[in-house]
Amino acid sequence: MDILHILEDYCSKNELDLIKFNAQEVVYSEGEKAKGVYFLKEGQVKVFKYDRERKPIFLWTARPGEPIGLVSFFQNTSLYCCTVKANHTEPSLYFLPNKVFLDLLNQHPELKLKLLKRLCEGISFMEMRSKYFLFNSIDERIIETLIFLANREGEKKLNLRFEFSMKDFTEMVGASLGYIRKRVKNLKNKELIDYGRNWLVINDLEKLKLARNNF
Amino acid sequence: MDILHILEDYCSKNELDLIKFNAQEVVYSEGEKAKGVYFLKEGQVKVFKYDRERKPIFLWTARPGEPIGLVSFFQNTSLYCCTVKANHTEPSLYFLPNKVFLDLLNQHPELKLKLLKRLCEGISFMEMRSKYFLFNSIDERIIETLIFLANREGEKKLNLRFEFSMKDFTEMVGASLGYIRKRVKNLKNKELIDYGRNWLVINDLEKLKLARNNF
Repeated sequence: MDILHILEDYCSKNELDLIKFNAQEVVYSEGEKAKGVYFLKEGQVKVFKYDRERKPIFLWTARPGEPIGLVSFFQNTSLYCCTVKANHTEPSLYFLPNKVFLDLLNQHPELKLKLLKRLCEGISFMEMRSKYFLFNSIDERIIETLIFLANREGEKKLNLRFEFSMKDFTEMVGASLGYIRKRVKNLKNKELIDYGRNWLVINDLEKLKLARNNF
Repeated sequence: MDILHILEDYCSKNELDLIKFNAQEVVYSEGEKAKGVYFLKEGQVKVFKYDRERKPIFLWTARPGEPIGLVSFFQNTSLYCCTVKANHTEPSLYFLPNKVFLDLLNQHPELKLKLLKRLCEGISFMEMRSKYFLFNSIDERIIETLIFLANREGEKKLNLRFEFSMKDFTEMVGASLGYIRKRVKNLKNKELIDYGRNWLVINDLEKLKLARNNF
């Protein structure tokens, strides 16, 4: 069973309701008391921190099935260490108070291995970011972010579709919306990708990888 | 039982030997076939990636008890995604081939929760880095890196001792050795920290936190 099925099962048995959020609504804020762990059922949320000037620093985007607030839970800090906010979607999440989450782990020990896998995905994303963000150009960051997102999807190489707006993507890459728009249009003109208001498709991952060197 | 005790037990029962490395010796390299997971028994190793110009990008330092190669294992990539190298110490590591590591997890299900905790620590470190490295000054990065390392130690606030050389610390902060030396000396003059060839002590964590604003 995948993470979402385990959650659905457990939450219906224990009468835990889904919580719905509006687009751009805050799920919780950095520094707030960490009362439990969320699991994303539908939609997407973005996870970020604020710097001292209250400028948001994007960390990652969660997709259905992903736990939110896990790091705060395992760190035994009593405060959430990030801010979580809906992107352009209207996400719904399960909320498990700390004690309930511990009970879930006891009832479903197989979940631990799945969570380990998810966390490793997160680490891998951040390692990629460290690698490309500290020293590389924005063009390289655009391509590497797309390739990373594609690799998360497994073996699929053609017509990889992602549900995010250009603003969400801009935050992932860490650049200005205007510049990203220009460069992404260039990739579209080369027929490497396609995109609309809230989606982006990688037409052919292998061709995109080849474009890395002359973008 | 902590991770190291579980490992020692398991490895002695299954006749798995400790592997010793010299200072600065490479344990494995990015792109090499991922044959299994390591656990650090003694000493320290640093984990990094290379950028295109073969410039190393520091990711994190592992301490005794920490797993190495876990992300590659759970990602099902068949290649190691980082390079791991001894720092100034002569570390010893347990090596568990992939199948053996799976067997260990089955024999010791309690290990999964401990590994989750470790990974969350790693994520937290990288989030801190994202927060301070993309937008903040080197002075802020120095202080925040020290505070982060201190927070990892739990409740302790006075005389926090770390075993790393100034070169290792320089890699963590991501700046030139010359500049770090100058700034760290300034912190020593203010009696906030002390250091020698391969160690650094935070005298008083609370005072160091206060110094954040006028370093």
